[in-house]
Amino acid sequence: MKHQLKAASAAVAALAVMAAFPGMALAQDGKGVAELAQHGGAQRIAGVYGNATAKNVILFIGDGMGDSEITVARDYLHGVNGSFDGLDKIGQPNLNTVETGTGQYTTFSLGANSGDSLMAKNAYGSLAGGKTAGAITPVTDSSASGSGWATGTKTYNNAVDVDVNGNPQLNLIELAKAKGLATGNVTTAEIQDATPAVLESHSTERSCYGPQGKTDGTSSNAAKNCLASQLKENGGIGSISEQLLDTRADVTIGGGSKYFRQTAQGGDYAGKTLWDQAKERGYQTVENDVDAFSGLQYKDGQPVLALLSDGNMPTQYNPSVATKQDPAKDENPVECSVNEKWLGNKNASGNSASLADMTSKALDLLQANPKSQNGFFLQVEGASIDKQDHNGNACGQIGETDDLDKAISAALEKIDLSDTLVIVTADHAHTSQIVESQPAYALSTVLRTKDGGNMVVSYGTSEDNLYSDGNDTEGTADASKAQGNMSHTGTQLRIAASGPGASRVDGLTDQTDNFYTIAYALGLAADTDAQKALSNDGTVAVKKADDGTYSAELNGFNGDAVISYELKDKASGKVVAASNSDTPVSGVRVATGETTGISFGDFQPAEGASYTLTVTGRQSGKTASVDFPAASGTVDKKPGAGQNGEQGKDSASGTVAEGQVQKPAAPLGRTGAAVIAVALLAVALGCAALGIKFAKARR
Amino acid sequence: MKHQLKAASAAVAALAVMAAFPGMALAQDGKGVAELAQHGGAQRIAGVYGNATAKNVILFIGDGMGDSEITVARDYLHGVNGSFDGLDKIGQPNLNTVETGTGQYTTFSLGANSGDSLMAKNAYGSLAGGKTAGAITPVTDSSASGSGWATGTKTYNNAVDVDVNGNPQLNLIELAKAKGLATGNVTTAEIQDATPAVLESHSTERSCYGPQGKTDGTSSNAAKNCLASQLKENGGIGSISEQLLDTRADVTIGGGSKYFRQTAQGGDYAGKTLWDQAKERGYQTVENDVDAFSGLQYKDGQPVLALLSDGNMPTQYNPSVATKQDPAKDENPVECSVNEKWLGNKNASGNSASLADMTSKALDLLQANPKSQNGFFLQVEGASIDKQDHNGNACGQIGETDDLDKAISAALEKIDLSDTLVIVTADHAHTSQIVESQPAYALSTVLRTKDGGNMVVSYGTSEDNLYSDGNDTEGTADASKAQGNMSHTGTQLRIAASGPGASRVDGLTDQTDNFYTIAYALGLAADTDAQKALSNDGTVAVKKADDGTYSAELNGFNGDAVISYELKDKASGKVVAASNSDTPVSGVRVATGETTGISFGDFQPAEGASYTLTVTGRQSGKTASVDFPAASGTVDKKPGAGQNGEQGKDSASGTVAEGQVQKPAAPLGRTGAAVIAVALLAVALGCAALGIKFAKARR
Repeated sequence: MKHQLKAASAAVAALAVMAAFPGMALAQDGKGVAELAQHGGAQRIAGVYGNATAKNVILFIGDGMGDSEITVARDYLHGVNGSFDGLDKIGQPNLNTVETGTGQYTTFSLGANSGDSLMAKNAYGSLAGGKTAGAITPVTDSSASGSGWATGTKTYNNAVDVDVNGNPQLNLIELAKAKGLATGNVTTAEIQDATPAVLESHSTERSCYGPQGKTDGTSSNAAKNCLASQLKENGGIGSISEQLLDTRADVTIGGGSKYFRQTAQGGDYAGKTLWDQAKERGYQTVENDVDAFSGLQYKDGQPVLALLSDGNMPTQYNPSVATKQDPAKDENPVECSVNEKWLGNKNASGNSASLADMTSKALDLLQANPKSQNGFFLQVEGASIDKQDHNGNACGQIGETDDLDKAISAALEKIDLSDTLVIVTADHAHTSQIVESQPAYALSTVLRTKDGGNMVVSYGTSEDNLYSDGNDTEGTADASKAQGNMSHTGTQLRIAASGPGASRVDGLTDQTDNFYTIAYALGLAADTDAQKALSNDGTVAVKKADDGTYSAELNGFNGDAVISYELKDKASGKVVAASNSDTPVSGVRVATGETTGISFGDFQPAEGASYTLTVTGRQSGKTASVDFPAASGTVDKKPGAGQNGEQGKDSASGTVAEGQVQKPAAPLGRTGAAVIAVALLAVALGCAALGIKFAKARR
Repeated sequence: MKHQLKAASAAVAALAVMAAFPGMALAQDGKGVAELAQHGGAQRIAGVYGNATAKNVILFIGDGMGDSEITVARDYLHGVNGSFDGLDKIGQPNLNTVETGTGQYTTFSLGANSGDSLMAKNAYGSLAGGKTAGAITPVTDSSASGSGWATGTKTYNNAVDVDVNGNPQLNLIELAKAKGLATGNVTTAEIQDATPAVLESHSTERSCYGPQGKTDGTSSNAAKNCLASQLKENGGIGSISEQLLDTRADVTIGGGSKYFRQTAQGGDYAGKTLWDQAKERGYQTVENDVDAFSGLQYKDGQPVLALLSDGNMPTQYNPSVATKQDPAKDENPVECSVNEKWLGNKNASGNSASLADMTSKALDLLQANPKSQNGFFLQVEGASIDKQDHNGNACGQIGETDDLDKAISAALEKIDLSDTLVIVTADHAHTSQIVESQPAYALSTVLRTKDGGNMVVSYGTSEDNLYSDGNDTEGTADASKAQGNMSHTGTQLRIAASGPGASRVDGLTDQTDNFYTIAYALGLAADTDAQKALSNDGTVAVKKADDGTYSAELNGFNGDAVISYELKDKASGKVVAASNSDTPVSGVRVATGETTGISFGDFQPAEGASYTLTVTGRQSGKTASVDFPAASGTVDKKPGAGQNGEQGKDSASGTVAEGQVQKPAAPLGRTGAAVIAVALLAVALGCAALGIKFAKARR
């Protein structure tokens, strides 16, 4: 609570502060979905700001790591009175002089909007009563919760950085890139899994892994796993994997390499595998190769994409299987054994890829990146705490918690808490519980703890385990076992932080507050108006390539995830090309902080005709227009800013014309209220639906 | 973390501080029972002090109120984004300018020592593997956990303020009384239940409610429920109810009135009911009478003992019953209804006794007490969160959480957080979980929340509910249901605080740290040496009553819960009377901050003989001796300090002789190490076993 004590040390001052910040009260009861679904609408501490700024932020997520799961792992690994070396250090006030905070946050999600076809598929559709439409759902999944901290917007289970209406919400990596920071995303899961995905993409369905859905590229199930209008072949912004390449974090490390063997079905890379696309776009790629991973070094302009296993990474420990009550289990408590396939084991070359190794490598790469002089944002996920908890696999979840703990310790070796905010939390809790004795019929595992005693871990929600050998993507039903799946829970859970801004996690907050905590600490555009303003300097340039095709390049639309465009014949007013705007995930995916390209396909200007290209940020509502040919024969020769090297080479190619976002007519420097009113007007104008269907996004 | 930031704002300073306080590190793995069982041995933040002092402390305990139980109640009562008016205010940094803290603490307990007959009966003997002896047990019960925060000593399930060897440990009310503070103890449970009991008594068995065990006085089952040597008829310190009267808190409000209908079986009040004893000893008593409760006012020297129901108090809501999976439950979610027997309902006179009412009354009584100028310590327990959770009764636990929340709000109306530290936490968590949908076979209840949606609460550890109508002492098995009992869990859980010293709950602490947090804030004797020193001014006076019987009166043995005595013929060295010292709970119970009496039964000094009475504090090791008759015919006429009025009336009665605790021979002002060495020597000398059996404690 440091900032509070400093900001207002007397009661009178406090009253003044409370008047200034309406958020300085308990979150009010009775908010409905409509209010909660707004960007920032579910905040509990809206209006509370820290007075500290952090250069860097590392967010550690233990997927499914509620207080019960933390205690299960601590009791087993360190004893009931023992401590995690890393995990328990974050937030602990007596260990250092930096700002610290510990608290609890709420994690609920929202039901999808009734009758909205976007939301028809809900991976967790079997919520209480089966009635998810328009409801508030007490138990979140990883995608809604991840979207909460990644964007500050409360949304529905299955949503990846889109709101309950499917509108993309800017995420922390996009906002960090907009400010020029280095960015990273590390996980033990498939990189397309919900928790990493919320830093890569905007998807109405969490299962829309790639252009061919959730396959290794030898077949496609995209129709089942993706909203059709999000697919590139239909004028959409693309699958999670394709958007990952647009997002272009400096460092991306995880599993899920097989999904990059899929082939793009639309866009400029149609017909090429995602691995080939990644290479063409300048990525340093590593596929299932620990030695190559270990050898990675920072290279200018070449982000790292290292996917080290086909699916989720193998777990540290071999699985235990929760079974029915049996006195023999008390006599022979389980001691977990190391999985020989775990990438954290040293290989013949002495290399390994534990989560600690991946975290350490990510920090090396980020710190070597000149952008890190502005700071960095890195998320690290220990994913299989959740996955093995779903399977009723106590050893699995314990080993993954250990791996996360060691990743935190590894980070603490490389960073300085005086300029780096480290946050440790989870996306939701799980059903594993330490109970007094084997329950009558819930499945349980009896483990021998570090203390030498027995600990009974119970799983109460499924009749039988999914069985996983620790190496599967998903738990699979063993022949001898019925299919089952342990549940997430809806409890509030722990958030802890050390470093500048850490005290903002004190008390009771909501998962969406965590977005603001990070955004405020890094000075990112947190509220909707500030985010829209990131597109104020948007520019559009029309290009003509050597082969005579026309395209456009956008820069500075950093307040947008998606743009729409419309190309009109100036004389007739006829639309000759336009993006698809059927749904909020149709259109052109913005490459934040980079150049976004638009291909116009077969378009060729008619002799003597003049055209107007209008580009509209679908989030910001900002519009930039450009007329061309401005004047025949006066093609601008200055090189384009295209990353892929589309520079003018002769008088017949190059930048044809340039436009920029129109500045508001209202003078700047007004009061906040007036500025907001202007912005809202801009939104209203900019959000008008565009109905004509034709789009081809180039990157 | 305020104190840390102030205490050491630079790294160099931090290092200096860390060197000074060895506790400023993570709790080390691998501590065994022997180390953990020491007073303070399980602290995680030993050596960390706040720099704030509080005049008053209120400790709110939600029994069984883990994060999951908090969320269940919040979701139901206020909606997923709503807030408790009281519970969520404590620890919330943005609501006021006072010091705040939120964190998690660990709650494990210790197995009883192998082969120690004191520990033979363990109410939760069915721990994992059935092996509790000498083990560390990951799941605590309410008595071990209560003992943890009440005394700072980690102990076994079933222990009430005794360590694993049965040695009494001083509790917060005893220590607060030693400092002259006003004290209070409020609960919705039977006042003899574990959580209130830890502020009243030292008992090797939590079920030793009264001299006749757990009955209404028409029979006795003391042999089953009490360690024999603790019973007064066997020279013991007495049952929980009898010790409550010795402890003499200024305000005691709860249930369990029927146990006060029991009759004392030994001691000065043998043959009288406990209600009669309470009245004789000057208590204002209220038995099951809400109007009389409402009319209570502070009266000098007349502590309040108000027990408002025979057993545990009726719950606010009528019970819900968790049942097996059934789609109909989703269609007809439960809405809880108010129990007409709840004492929080206004009666015909307009009076009520909700936990909020009781808290409010307790504060009125404490604040009217002149001792409160020194400050007060008050514990308030919402007991039936746990009890109804055991029964799988979602409505029951929710209503009790609501009641606790409102009690916190009521307290905030009457106190000032600038001088009062308010802590809200639980003793352990429970198995109720908010899950996605009705589990396949765990029992569950579907509730309609404040948001209008469904919430599924699952209970995973028992096949069937105990059934309670909300008014029973214990859940009782319905004819149609098998007996069952939902389990406690071993997860770390929430602790939150506002007021001076609050930030000491930040981060990860242990339940025993909470004792130190409170003791430091109030300036109580926290460590063992300081506690022993509370008996430094102990005095003993031999008295002769009008009827010629001899007795002794002790004052100032505030560092002890139990004293032993030995009366010797000075010439022959023969012991003519002595307390029973068979077990640590044998001997004379000290009335902390009051006068403790010892009756010598039939003892009459022989003509011309001289005697030595030696009194030894069994915790402090401090000894006071007195010789008498000092000189025939020179009886000291000054009035004794006896509370019961045994004052000298003529030359043949009154104070016969006086002695006091011998001060250490070593000069004061030495280094800490030397002082500790001297103290340890005193303990070693004082703890020598006394084998002769005869004892009669007067109060």
